[in-house]
Amino acid sequence: RYFHFCKLPGRVMGIRLLRFTSVVIIVLLLVAGALTALLPNIKDDKMPNSRREPKTQSQSALDSFTLIMQTYNRTDLLLKLLNHYQAIPHLHKVIVVWNNIGEKIPEEMWNSLGPHPVPVVFKVQTVNRMRNRLQNFPELETKAVLMMDDDTLVSAHDLAFAFSVWQQFPEHIVGFVPRKHISTPSGVYSYGSFELQNPGFGNGDQYSMVLIGAAFFHSRYLEDFQRQPEAVYALIDETQNCDDIAMNFLVAKHTGKPSGVFVKPVDIRNLEKDTNSGYSGMWHRAEHLLQRSYCVNKLVHIYDGMPLKYSNIMISQFGFPNYANHKNKM
Amino acid sequence: RYFHFCKLPGRVMGIRLLRFTSVVIIVLLLVAGALTALLPNIKDDKMPNSRREPKTQSQSALDSFTLIMQTYNRTDLLLKLLNHYQAIPHLHKVIVVWNNIGEKIPEEMWNSLGPHPVPVVFKVQTVNRMRNRLQNFPELETKAVLMMDDDTLVSAHDLAFAFSVWQQFPEHIVGFVPRKHISTPSGVYSYGSFELQNPGFGNGDQYSMVLIGAAFFHSRYLEDFQRQPEAVYALIDETQNCDDIAMNFLVAKHTGKPSGVFVKPVDIRNLEKDTNSGYSGMWHRAEHLLQRSYCVNKLVHIYDGMPLKYSNIMISQFGFPNYANHKNKM
Repeated sequence: RYFHFCKLPGRVMGIRLLRFTSVVIIVLLLVAGALTALLPNIKDDKMPNSRREPKTQSQSALDSFTLIMQTYNRTDLLLKLLNHYQAIPHLHKVIVVWNNIGEKIPEEMWNSLGPHPVPVVFKVQTVNRMRNRLQNFPELETKAVLMMDDDTLVSAHDLAFAFSVWQQFPEHIVGFVPRKHISTPSGVYSYGSFELQNPGFGNGDQYSMVLIGAAFFHSRYLEDFQRQPEAVYALIDETQNCDDIAMNFLVAKHTGKPSGVFVKPVDIRNLEKDTNSGYSGMWHRAEHLLQRSYCVNKLVHIYDGMPLKYSNIMISQFGFPNYANHKNKM
Repeated sequence: RYFHFCKLPGRVMGIRLLRFTSVVIIVLLLVAGALTALLPNIKDDKMPNSRREPKTQSQSALDSFTLIMQTYNRTDLLLKLLNHYQAIPHLHKVIVVWNNIGEKIPEEMWNSLGPHPVPVVFKVQTVNRMRNRLQNFPELETKAVLMMDDDTLVSAHDLAFAFSVWQQFPEHIVGFVPRKHISTPSGVYSYGSFELQNPGFGNGDQYSMVLIGAAFFHSRYLEDFQRQPEAVYALIDETQNCDDIAMNFLVAKHTGKPSGVFVKPVDIRNLEKDTNSGYSGMWHRAEHLLQRSYCVNKLVHIYDGMPLKYSNIMISQFGFPNYANHKNKM
């Protein structure tokens, strides 16, 4: 009887124990949840080179670059340039954007004159568009892109140095052709080169863009270009111009800094005259510069602001081309 | 009787409840402790300008710099330089490190010829030491320090540009005098200037130090200098030399990058000849350069490795001093 009696309270206690254990578990979960919420979430690194790294990239793909060259109506020049650029150090691959619609690519001839140290891929296009060169090509395996116009020759030495500079400024467009915008009292922007002076600058000059026709930039910017407002593509196609200005807007918006780093070239040449096609570049058109001012203002409207920032930094190689070129001859 | 019976188990249960509650608390503490250990501990930001910001800093102290100039036996030159540097833009304060032991500071005369736009503080020293200028002066309110030798004049324009460059490279020594070390096959290092060529360099030249006798650097490096091995101070005092080499070691170790960024000066002058004291700088001593090679090897031994890295970047101002100085005259 006594024992019988005492089972009841025992059971009661068992139930309370059960309630307690569940309370313990719930509290533990709450505490765990609360503290876990305080853990850091992985932040996006601002430096583009440290994000979205394909696992497949070989080491060589990391310390080398891909040359992207768009060509139109200058196949003789193209072949001359392809020959020249084959000898560039750190060159991983060449992607030729073939804008000669319906025309056969010179691949057969190229291969017949091989072997060549660096593979060349011809990307046949269906429409002759300025922005064809700004695709996110699947053949592109390197972080670094060197984009060159098909009439411009830059010395191997300048390219090797500029690539080493790009490796120190991977989020910028590192190139040889600086340009700038000027804001006028009317609020309308004007596009120009070093001849166009801004009284506000004080001593020296400044630039707010580095053209991509002779520049290194990060391949992730080609991905980013695919996600721009339709109006940007429309503007570029309407003018067959300004894709380089758009890229500078894109980079300046991404970094919040000047889009470009200007490297002073020692030897850069325009080979236009050398082509037998007699074709001369788009920039000879009377409206070329006017179009580019027009584009700057359009892009400011599309992006709802002026992201371009000024820089007055010019980088050259210490002790080259002249021994002691850092000594001033004054 | 029945009730009497059931009190006993009740008390027993009370004790068990008590035990349980304490178990709960202990478990909670353990879990809390474990999860808290997972929380991020505040990391030292690599960029020195974003650490240890005195709350008191005025905005002007953030976008301005302090000139620190050590002087010995050239008071006439000092006054000439003080007059020159009074006109430099963004100059917040001048700290004169007075190494003329026992000699009266020219404060009275300086003030009698006032007013002066920028305050000048004379720091009277008790021992004439090279490294007196590397103290963490309480009067120093800016992040940026401009350190100048007392026989060197750099144009206001060069200083304004170099300061804008430093603001973009705040963790580096940004200055006008590059130097380098060379490793010889014997494993012994040699110190030199641009005359000393390293066959390994290929084209052009490189530097691994930027001297602090005409340079901008972050004030936090003066704090860091107070925490160096005693052997470093002993080496500097024994040679009355090499404090600038030690600073380059310190910065290179801190950043893991080249310690300096070289800005090509347009107008830098040595005014040594102008002093009436006839005193000529330490670097005229026959042993000066030998001492500096000696210091490099000693510092490698003290720091148990060679932290200095090479750079071949030379920065100049776009469009200055010549309009279109970025055009190559080739």
